[in-house]
Amino acid sequence: MSADKLREYVSGIKALDAAAAQKARERLDSLAKPPGSLGKLEDIAERLSGISGQMHYNTEKRCVIVMSSDNGVFEEGVSSTPQSVTLAQTVNFVRGLTGVAVIAKQFNTDLIVVDVGINADVNHPQIIDRKIRKSTWNIAKQHAMTYDEALQAVLIGIETAIDAVKDGYTLVGVGEMGIANTTTSAAVLCALTGLPAQDVAGKGGGLLEDAYLHKIEVIRRAVENNKPDPADPIDVLAKVGGFDLAAMAGAYLGCAYMRVPVVIDGFISMVAALAGARISPIAKEYMIASHESFEQGFIHAEKALDIESSLRLNMRLGEGSGCPIMFAVIDAACGMMRDMATFEEAEINDDYLDELRKGDHFTVKKD
Amino acid sequence: MSADKLREYVSGIKALDAAAAQKARERLDSLAKPPGSLGKLEDIAERLSGISGQMHYNTEKRCVIVMSSDNGVFEEGVSSTPQSVTLAQTVNFVRGLTGVAVIAKQFNTDLIVVDVGINADVNHPQIIDRKIRKSTWNIAKQHAMTYDEALQAVLIGIETAIDAVKDGYTLVGVGEMGIANTTTSAAVLCALTGLPAQDVAGKGGGLLEDAYLHKIEVIRRAVENNKPDPADPIDVLAKVGGFDLAAMAGAYLGCAYMRVPVVIDGFISMVAALAGARISPIAKEYMIASHESFEQGFIHAEKALDIESSLRLNMRLGEGSGCPIMFAVIDAACGMMRDMATFEEAEINDDYLDELRKGDHFTVKKD
Repeated sequence: MSADKLREYVSGIKALDAAAAQKARERLDSLAKPPGSLGKLEDIAERLSGISGQMHYNTEKRCVIVMSSDNGVFEEGVSSTPQSVTLAQTVNFVRGLTGVAVIAKQFNTDLIVVDVGINADVNHPQIIDRKIRKSTWNIAKQHAMTYDEALQAVLIGIETAIDAVKDGYTLVGVGEMGIANTTTSAAVLCALTGLPAQDVAGKGGGLLEDAYLHKIEVIRRAVENNKPDPADPIDVLAKVGGFDLAAMAGAYLGCAYMRVPVVIDGFISMVAALAGARISPIAKEYMIASHESFEQGFIHAEKALDIESSLRLNMRLGEGSGCPIMFAVIDAACGMMRDMATFEEAEINDDYLDELRKGDHFTVKKD
Repeated sequence: MSADKLREYVSGIKALDAAAAQKARERLDSLAKPPGSLGKLEDIAERLSGISGQMHYNTEKRCVIVMSSDNGVFEEGVSSTPQSVTLAQTVNFVRGLTGVAVIAKQFNTDLIVVDVGINADVNHPQIIDRKIRKSTWNIAKQHAMTYDEALQAVLIGIETAIDAVKDGYTLVGVGEMGIANTTTSAAVLCALTGLPAQDVAGKGGGLLEDAYLHKIEVIRRAVENNKPDPADPIDVLAKVGGFDLAAMAGAYLGCAYMRVPVVIDGFISMVAALAGARISPIAKEYMIASHESFEQGFIHAEKALDIESSLRLNMRLGEGSGCPIMFAVIDAACGMMRDMATFEEAEINDDYLDELRKGDHFTVKKD
């Protein structure tokens, strides 16, 4: 049943509106600037038109969806942070105290915080309870979850995004909180790409060298023993992923389904985007990368997804903290499209130039 | 006299407040995140403390100073755009129609537009008249300006920045409008670094191949014939620079003098920053790079100044258009410093964790 529902959503994800994108490109080329000189701002504006079918895009109401969950592999000692921090920081999101919370506030961005598997009972009016169960299993010893739980997590992500868009959000970022989820992300990336663990494992929140070597070994064994099928991203998420990752993958799909642009944060968010794009390749057209994470595996995930980030801030916090900064870049793109003059409007046409050349004196026209 | 005045300003530029920066770093390390995980946001916050002597920095009132001027080398056919566009776009700045104008508006940024040498009479209440004369001379044939004019232009920049800070601006960007100023910028960069013209010349607004080769030759000859002294940046600006470039170099110095952070835009702005830093090496500590311009010479200028940009947007418009986007990143840094919880405030301390571990149930505390 879950599989049918997912298939239904995936078949509802449609390609961008090429005609609207083409019209946007024509307008971009008519703006008073050397063609293409606003680089990625132009690319983003064109894409927003393809996504929405409209020339102009309103980004006023935006949010970061944060998926919080614990990961059984924590017990292998792959993280320098206690597991209880997943819960504590999740509560701190809604208290406005964490990195993503303060950056979101700076950019008028709401947080939608979802508990998909925190290892504690959580009762908080601002934390959406979609808990599948308390923590996944330890991927070093068994599957993270059943295949059906993975489907369920992806559907939770899709539905969270759909609800957000129905609530009026037109720009969405995808973040997470889940101690040990750089380990599961690395394992998913290995499984999806065939890359060896030592290439994609990073030091996460701050592992020392021995613990780091152990982490690489845990990832290697998890992939080797669980034998995830790279052709089936749900199988990969179930065997070596996490509830957070699976729900995030779903959030990307939900945004694509609703034709809303969705911004990727750092390493974990990028791996989830890759998993989402493996479920629905068309969904990638709705994704916008933000910053180049300092976590080692990031560039491999970015390359596998074939996408390019715009911000080089050496950040590696996660939580979705890079998304609101990228929203500002997207705001700039929308502002350019909406407010910048065309050559004609700027009156830098031949008549105007002749007038200037003749007079060598400029009389300001009343606007 | 101008030389004395410049010396006075330069000697008034002081190093950052190391103690304030150290206190800022301590607070940054106490915030609830892996140390350093907010990367450049942390570096910026630390630097703002060193600049201001305060822990927190207010970026609410910010501006981009745009220096507009014409360049005599235009007559060599080094630009694909008519010279009158310098005037037209300068007027369009204050009409809110150009790239930097719309991006500035998006980020609550004012424009301060200064005519330092537009090749026309300009009378506009919103354009500050500091015209030295109508256009520099053609660097392919002679010096761009006299040594004294170069000093005058640098002082105009310094005073414009000082006035802006006195008016309450606490964050400043430096932009320009001047047809053919990628040619003068490349010549200044060659003169200051010894790099050959073909390495630093770019295609500006959109030169075709033949005109591009000609541009390289013009730059090469300008440097060879005028023999600017690389040890004297004023001499370099006078011989192969422009009023815009010299005034921009001054704007950086004026911000440093007033202890206010100043943001670099693209290629021309970066070359002006380099010239400014050659006049006062300490001034560099007040400079913040924004985006990596797509104009070819940019990376050489960035390397020569030994500074690193944070945005990779493939922009090459100039005008100061990248500065307001970087202001958003700086806003994020200030927001983090001001609003993010310390480990203690986030209550992720041992007692708190013990409580969570014991109960496996979290009771939300009233804030």
